[in-house]
Amino acid sequence: MLYNATNPILSGDKWGYIMISGSYILFSLVAALFALAFAMILTKRVLKADPGNAEMQKISNATREGAMTYLKRQYMAIIYFTIFMIMVLTIIGPETVIAFALGAGLSAFAGFIGLNIATKANVRTAEGARQGLNKGLRIAFSSGAVMGLSVVGLGLLGLSIMFIFLSAAFDNDLEQVTTVIAGFGLGASSIALFARVGGGIFTKAADVGADLVGKVEAGIPEDDPRNPATIADNVGDNVGDVAGMGADLYESYVGSIIASMALGYVAFRHGDLPIEAILLPMVIAAVGIFSSIIGTFFVRTGERADQSELLLALRKGIYLSAVLVTVFSLLAVFFILGEAHIPVFGAIFAGLVAGIIIGISTEYYTSDTYTPTRELARTSQTGAGPTIINGLSIGMKSTMFPMITVGAAILTAYYFAGLYGIAISAVGMLSTLGITLATDAYGPVADNAGGIAEMAHMDKSVRKRTDALDSLGNTTAATGKGFAIGSAALTALALTVAYMDAAGITDISLTDPSVIVGLFLGGMLSFIFCAMTMQAVGRAASEIVEEVRRQFREIKGLMEGTAEPDYARCVDISTKSALREMILPGLTAVVVPVVVGLLLGPYALGGLLIGALVTGFLMAVMMANAGGAWDNAKKYIEVGHYGGKGSMPHKAAVVGDTVGDPFKDTSGPSLNILLKLMSIVSLVFAAFIVQNTIAG
Amino acid sequence: MLYNATNPILSGDKWGYIMISGSYILFSLVAALFALAFAMILTKRVLKADPGNAEMQKISNATREGAMTYLKRQYMAIIYFTIFMIMVLTIIGPETVIAFALGAGLSAFAGFIGLNIATKANVRTAEGARQGLNKGLRIAFSSGAVMGLSVVGLGLLGLSIMFIFLSAAFDNDLEQVTTVIAGFGLGASSIALFARVGGGIFTKAADVGADLVGKVEAGIPEDDPRNPATIADNVGDNVGDVAGMGADLYESYVGSIIASMALGYVAFRHGDLPIEAILLPMVIAAVGIFSSIIGTFFVRTGERADQSELLLALRKGIYLSAVLVTVFSLLAVFFILGEAHIPVFGAIFAGLVAGIIIGISTEYYTSDTYTPTRELARTSQTGAGPTIINGLSIGMKSTMFPMITVGAAILTAYYFAGLYGIAISAVGMLSTLGITLATDAYGPVADNAGGIAEMAHMDKSVRKRTDALDSLGNTTAATGKGFAIGSAALTALALTVAYMDAAGITDISLTDPSVIVGLFLGGMLSFIFCAMTMQAVGRAASEIVEEVRRQFREIKGLMEGTAEPDYARCVDISTKSALREMILPGLTAVVVPVVVGLLLGPYALGGLLIGALVTGFLMAVMMANAGGAWDNAKKYIEVGHYGGKGSMPHKAAVVGDTVGDPFKDTSGPSLNILLKLMSIVSLVFAAFIVQNTIAG
Repeated sequence: MLYNATNPILSGDKWGYIMISGSYILFSLVAALFALAFAMILTKRVLKADPGNAEMQKISNATREGAMTYLKRQYMAIIYFTIFMIMVLTIIGPETVIAFALGAGLSAFAGFIGLNIATKANVRTAEGARQGLNKGLRIAFSSGAVMGLSVVGLGLLGLSIMFIFLSAAFDNDLEQVTTVIAGFGLGASSIALFARVGGGIFTKAADVGADLVGKVEAGIPEDDPRNPATIADNVGDNVGDVAGMGADLYESYVGSIIASMALGYVAFRHGDLPIEAILLPMVIAAVGIFSSIIGTFFVRTGERADQSELLLALRKGIYLSAVLVTVFSLLAVFFILGEAHIPVFGAIFAGLVAGIIIGISTEYYTSDTYTPTRELARTSQTGAGPTIINGLSIGMKSTMFPMITVGAAILTAYYFAGLYGIAISAVGMLSTLGITLATDAYGPVADNAGGIAEMAHMDKSVRKRTDALDSLGNTTAATGKGFAIGSAALTALALTVAYMDAAGITDISLTDPSVIVGLFLGGMLSFIFCAMTMQAVGRAASEIVEEVRRQFREIKGLMEGTAEPDYARCVDISTKSALREMILPGLTAVVVPVVVGLLLGPYALGGLLIGALVTGFLMAVMMANAGGAWDNAKKYIEVGHYGGKGSMPHKAAVVGDTVGDPFKDTSGPSLNILLKLMSIVSLVFAAFIVQNTIAG
Repeated sequence: MLYNATNPILSGDKWGYIMISGSYILFSLVAALFALAFAMILTKRVLKADPGNAEMQKISNATREGAMTYLKRQYMAIIYFTIFMIMVLTIIGPETVIAFALGAGLSAFAGFIGLNIATKANVRTAEGARQGLNKGLRIAFSSGAVMGLSVVGLGLLGLSIMFIFLSAAFDNDLEQVTTVIAGFGLGASSIALFARVGGGIFTKAADVGADLVGKVEAGIPEDDPRNPATIADNVGDNVGDVAGMGADLYESYVGSIIASMALGYVAFRHGDLPIEAILLPMVIAAVGIFSSIIGTFFVRTGERADQSELLLALRKGIYLSAVLVTVFSLLAVFFILGEAHIPVFGAIFAGLVAGIIIGISTEYYTSDTYTPTRELARTSQTGAGPTIINGLSIGMKSTMFPMITVGAAILTAYYFAGLYGIAISAVGMLSTLGITLATDAYGPVADNAGGIAEMAHMDKSVRKRTDALDSLGNTTAATGKGFAIGSAALTALALTVAYMDAAGITDISLTDPSVIVGLFLGGMLSFIFCAMTMQAVGRAASEIVEEVRRQFREIKGLMEGTAEPDYARCVDISTKSALREMILPGLTAVVVPVVVGLLLGPYALGGLLIGALVTGFLMAVMMANAGGAWDNAKKYIEVGHYGGKGSMPHKAAVVGDTVGDPFKDTSGPSLNILLKLMSIVSLVFAAFIVQNTIAG
């Protein structure tokens, strides 16, 4: 037991305290910097790969420029938002402002890194796939790993720095430190709001817009270079699935650590291990980084690999990391908290296992190798109506495993380590994020590579290989979505518990009518938020439709291939509408908790957070899985079942997919943000609300 | 203050107690018998009306026979279920068994009365409409009033008898009386389960089946006598919308009174007014009956009335009743509880107002005179996908007013009268049920009358009049649905609070993880229940599709009109599949609460009930309103907007309507039952669960 000592705070041993905390923080810093260094090495490796011929590069550059334009605009919007938030946060304190700025800044930086590498890796993946499947996989996966490792590296780096800064600022007052560090999470959440909601609206507006006019009206294939919205569609894949997903998980990652710190302090403050309990989550995250990096080395496959072997290659990496993190966490708990607190490991392990089970459940409900999606494809023979009903039913039924799994994880974690256990189980679930996010962020790169292969008229064998990579990407994306939702739910719960503690309400009873009303309002917010984001996609898509129609009409020679469409204009329109449309749902998420807290009191606010959590979690799972099932049922028909492309069942399946698009890529994922953002807003403003509420 | 005395129980004055309770019970009995007598008079008046020519009667008789066949089968199934329940309930006690049997029996009887009059009134309404609009309205409305008054009359009669019986059985031990009377509610809930879920599946299976083959494949109009499923469709309107709706509201009606009795006892047991508080809800219900009866006299209209005047005629009746009940309730509270407890009236009034607001909100979101439905019709120009997305968005947004309204009612009621106030506000909301249910049950009669006019080749002017009546019926049905959901939510909450008290858990905290898990499971149950009922409709409908296709194929001369279809067989198939398909969701609702209570404990069960309430309430509102909006958007197009019948927008709108059918008529309404049934099961088994749970 290296660092186990009697509580140096209680004994007034300041230097003992600094030594103990210093060791853990140092370890976290090393892990974080190691992750970033490794991400840099991978970046160089990806960039060294052959970027293909001029035509390919031209297409890739257009996507890249579009993505960067979007990012620039988004960051401008974020700056305004940040100024507003900083003004508001001064009522909490200057340290919170600094924490907020750092949390937001690092998240934005991680998004930039991910988007940068993804838009450079796509063309290299296409060129790599020309040379061989394994080469394509390595490049795409490396690009994903850059994103994954940047997220965890910057997350842990930022938290380590904040901890040092706040310890100094508050003279090692752990209560202050663990309270104010929540500002860092609020910063992360704010960026996630923009990246996930704005990105989600962008990607689906471009996608739907491109399809409606291109495929349906003009009758040209997907990814056809004559379609003015095709670059916007590619950009959307990157800003939605890479930057959006990354920011979402960055938020969960730092949120779960922050909640564990706060609850670790609460649980151990009167014992002799407060600093150990507070820093354990950072150490778990650190060992998770090392485990993830080791795991990435095992992602490779033979040249003639079929899809299941490709999947196996990715799985090998993930499962190996999970095993490693299990062993390391056990050691960490043993050496840091000591033998008596070994049960804390049970909580971490429960979270880790829950994450894996939710991933498997998502795959079952959305992959065309299993009954639900196949049944859905069969239903499409009876028309669009039954396809919608059955898809919604699948989505609703698919909530069973995730809810029960997370429920079991909560009970297990609590059994082993109380409320602290619930928070640290979320850290356990997210500990292998470095590699799980890599397998996830790899998908859009493969997808884009396929688009480039199509647009640059590369050999059919290339498209076939990128399709194999992409199809795999769809499976891992589905699993990743389940994982993102599960971790968001657990993180939001942990943050909510931390909020309750910060507000000093240990007992928030269901027999209190304001709590019931809070639950009603929270559930309602999830529904309203969904409706707002779905309708936002509809409005934004119709603007793209107008523009594409205009270009087809006005640009002469476009359809004949003699003139070029104005790609940039579609990107521009999507950007503007995405940023405009996210204002209302975004403001709702930030403002409503504070208003409810001030008007109905902190108890009602607790109810609101839990109500939003229960309903939002259900809706997020339902939407992700229904959307995934519709998507894959359509693809299942497209490969030749039930009449294939253009048949009546296919038309019905396309209706399903149209509904599923905003479900799975906009509204569903945005709910993750809603839950976490509302709970961290409440946590940060807890004391303010308690002091200023007008409720009795 | 007629009956205000010092607590005769505490003072040991048994005869004083009997005199006080006797007066109130007598008043309730008189009101109940008055309602039943008035229903009988109305029945005679309806039957005296001209039943039209032989052809009309033949069609009507076929519907009637089908409905009665369904009812008979359903009652057989209920008898088996009742035997099972009685065996289970013996573990609670013989008095509970008796209460259960009476509650179930009277609900079944009310259903029979309603179905009987509705299937006799339809042909008379058609004949009446031939003579004039006002005559048609009077007959249809009288038939609805028979249903409404039977429900409230039999409900109050049963509760009065039970109170007398239990007072005798338990020697006036009010705690026992108010606990065991919950068995009566459980009986009502069980019948509601069959009537609402089974009826909901029946009606949509027949409707969808008839439409898919008749309208879409064979290209014959709606209600065409050549369609073998058309009688089943008519039968469905009756068993779903008359018997199902009636049983649903009967359950809310008795459930809210029972919850108020239990919570009245709890609130006043240490004071001097327990018996007054317990019987006040019965007296409120009684004055509501008188108010409703007076209201019915004001439902009449001029001969040249347009739709808004027709609506005004119905509204006049409802609003007058509401005003009367307000005045009478105030007097009742004043005379029974005394001046000091006047605030209790505030709770009653809050419920009454909330019911009206929810009705108005429902109308706003589903009527084609307002923006949402018109926008939805406009969206259908862009295809089926956007129509679905927009409809779902409307449904989700429409949850705002009902949630806030019910939330405000809860807070107001609690403010004025504590938890007792919440329960009695539900009684207030339902006090005018006699007339609100009348306006609701009138719809299917008018709808059927239109079908008969069509099938019997009556003059076009008749169909026009029945269409006016029917269209009005759609509006009142939408309002009625909102009202049914709102009252179900408030009743379920009241029953849940009563459960918590019965289980002795006054403090059920959100920081207890088993409560959180309970919330998760409850929310999940709502989703699973929805999925099960939607898929049940799909399966049952496809059986009808098969049968209709078979008859078109095998019965020679059917399409030419020289041979008759086998109507009975379609009714038979719908009946069988409806009863088969309701087993699983039904068992889920009954068994899961007990299992969760025994495995995870009474706290988790409390969480489950609230979780189901929040999510189920939201889903029920969303489904009812999305379904109503799709239905009316389709009708809006059919009258000539955006290309009218057969246009592309119309096809998209039909897809929306196909999805909306099980939403609004099966799954949505079934959720009302789920919420109330689970909470009353928990209330009845509360003591058993507390004693036998394995949770710590």
